[in-house]
Amino acid sequence: MSSIVMKFGGPAVATPEKMQAIARRAIEEQGKGLHVVIVISPMATIRRELQAYAAELSDNPVKREQDVLLAAEAQMTSALLSIAITEQGGKAVSLAGWQTGVATDSLHNNARIEAVKTQRIYKHFEQGEIVVIAGSQGVDSHENITTFGKGGSETTAVAVAAAINAERVDMYTTVDGIYTADPHIVPNAKKLKELSYDEMLELANLGAMIIHPRAVELAKKYNIPVVVRSSTVNVEGTLLKEEVEMEKNLVVRGIAYESDIIRLTVGYDSYEEASLADIFTVLANNGINVDIIVQAVIDKVKPTISFSIEKEQFAESLRVLESSKLSLGFSFADFEVGLAKVSIVGSGMVSHPGIAARMFTRLSREGIDVKMVSTSEIKVSVVVPQEDMIRAANALHEEFNLTI
Amino acid sequence: MSSIVMKFGGPAVATPEKMQAIARRAIEEQGKGLHVVIVISPMATIRRELQAYAAELSDNPVKREQDVLLAAEAQMTSALLSIAITEQGGKAVSLAGWQTGVATDSLHNNARIEAVKTQRIYKHFEQGEIVVIAGSQGVDSHENITTFGKGGSETTAVAVAAAINAERVDMYTTVDGIYTADPHIVPNAKKLKELSYDEMLELANLGAMIIHPRAVELAKKYNIPVVVRSSTVNVEGTLLKEEVEMEKNLVVRGIAYESDIIRLTVGYDSYEEASLADIFTVLANNGINVDIIVQAVIDKVKPTISFSIEKEQFAESLRVLESSKLSLGFSFADFEVGLAKVSIVGSGMVSHPGIAARMFTRLSREGIDVKMVSTSEIKVSVVVPQEDMIRAANALHEEFNLTI
Repeated sequence: MSSIVMKFGGPAVATPEKMQAIARRAIEEQGKGLHVVIVISPMATIRRELQAYAAELSDNPVKREQDVLLAAEAQMTSALLSIAITEQGGKAVSLAGWQTGVATDSLHNNARIEAVKTQRIYKHFEQGEIVVIAGSQGVDSHENITTFGKGGSETTAVAVAAAINAERVDMYTTVDGIYTADPHIVPNAKKLKELSYDEMLELANLGAMIIHPRAVELAKKYNIPVVVRSSTVNVEGTLLKEEVEMEKNLVVRGIAYESDIIRLTVGYDSYEEASLADIFTVLANNGINVDIIVQAVIDKVKPTISFSIEKEQFAESLRVLESSKLSLGFSFADFEVGLAKVSIVGSGMVSHPGIAARMFTRLSREGIDVKMVSTSEIKVSVVVPQEDMIRAANALHEEFNLTI
Repeated sequence: MSSIVMKFGGPAVATPEKMQAIARRAIEEQGKGLHVVIVISPMATIRRELQAYAAELSDNPVKREQDVLLAAEAQMTSALLSIAITEQGGKAVSLAGWQTGVATDSLHNNARIEAVKTQRIYKHFEQGEIVVIAGSQGVDSHENITTFGKGGSETTAVAVAAAINAERVDMYTTVDGIYTADPHIVPNAKKLKELSYDEMLELANLGAMIIHPRAVELAKKYNIPVVVRSSTVNVEGTLLKEEVEMEKNLVVRGIAYESDIIRLTVGYDSYEEASLADIFTVLANNGINVDIIVQAVIDKVKPTISFSIEKEQFAESLRVLESSKLSLGFSFADFEVGLAKVSIVGSGMVSHPGIAARMFTRLSREGIDVKMVSTSEIKVSVVVPQEDMIRAANALHEEFNLTI
């Protein structure tokens, strides 16, 4: 008998009515002759309340205890959902991470899954029960409760699916699938039937954060099909899998964007003083995520290094650069705000040279300045002025025939 | 190094300020050179919210999942308290029932503790940590979460104290000790310095429910000293222990009362039809708690059986009697409402004959009707009209010199 894993986020369990809807859908899936696992996130309301309470007690609550709070919240949601399923005539059992047997390392707030035991899940399957697992939690080798940080529930769903060799993971989200671009900014964007893990990863990393990259990576590793679908509307979603049939020979599969990008530039008096390793080590040690990096070596006498960061880390970046100026040996630092990143993604790109050139040509024709460029085998990102972002996304969507 | 167990109920953790006060007190106790365990109940606010949510999903939520909800609530409280302790410079670690190693049977909502492991508690003691245990929860042999029902956290505190051989349990409550009578109805009641487990048990069972009898029984079994004290005011409480020094040779140690008692009477046509066993088996099978039982056999031809029940179970009792009338063979059923129970308690009573007589004499002198009587080795209870309850309690308090 095949099994599936259904994953629901916080918004999908926000009210009793929504929970009842999930219960119905799970019973329906089981009725198709499938073993069903549900992975659930905490309800947002309880979470906010508890966090506010913890914040009153401490500005910086112990991470181990934050994990206990978070885990208890998801546990409650799993118990409530089991109650809802039972009420509708189904059979269900809730399991916390330690009961499921989700073994992790000891990095509180951001633990990594080491193994998922299957014995208990199979036992409940045999009893005809829907297994409701509290997501984003496990237990370390000292029996401390751990949680997984961002994307934790999605990662749990994929990890469980891999362990029990599930047919697929259905990720129920607030959107009904992955689109060629964000429909809010590109009105004629269209939903993709299929997408490869790599394409999804690039899109996720480029701002289209529908499924956390961590979960996509795990799905790719274990080759678990993942369906991104709506938790409210029962329509077909987007299937993530390893190999995707070429849809009408599209090379570019999607457009992603990210606003509020800031470009920082540091300049050196001589080439000898400029060390990429040094500057990015200092930034990384201070927890600053650097995205695109451009090293200008046109003039070897006065080299510059530019990189983009998110708005939230601007002040901290300036502080770090300022305090490390002497040791890093640069002579000036400069910045540009009001930028955005627009990217094209498609795994066919690697075999289609000239895609980047076509992108630059179109942007130039639109009169849009390209401030920075970054490429990988399956994507090209450009940093443009914030005010041109939407226009750039729409122009590229048209340029690469995504509407067809 | 000695250890103590501190137990706090829901009201004591209702606000961040109260939690900080607990944290301070625990750090203070540790500063005296003691290992400290805290046992905690869920915060009432979260509990109400979750119960309301569960009630929206089902009129009769699965017991197993109710236990998961309840356990998660206490877990949250334990994590918050650990955060509060850490914030004040202490070291603390929260443990759920399964982490502590509280093994129970599988009776959800009302599980019994089978064993408490000590290894993990000792490990945290060695690390100088205050161990904050989520009360009223454990794990059965199949790794299901169980909770203990009424008095569960107090019972946890005593069980843990027994396991680690603690010096004593400090039960922090909304009152500052055990009084000779409820000060609300007997204004000159006085606080007892000491009380024996048995006396406490009788008082608890007779309506003075400050510590749940289940916890007192366990304390008696393992001879764990228990101090009943205030969670808000730092004054000396009442010490419960096996042997109590006679305070001024008092025979009666306390007065307890319980209002809203109902007397039910069933009458039979002949002695042959009247079976005490039958009627109380039927009532017990329907979950009805019968307190005082009086069988009148003055006239063997028309015997009657009277018993007292709580107001809450009145309707259900009538329903049960009605539907079992034929099989039980009684000819009529009658009831009297508006009654109350007043009891005198003291372990010295057994060696002082005439105490009951003195009680009846005094009540008679006060013109108070005694409707039913029940005695044990260390208490005498009478059922009187509700409107005479307070007068009876005060008269008996005076009669047995409890004010001195």
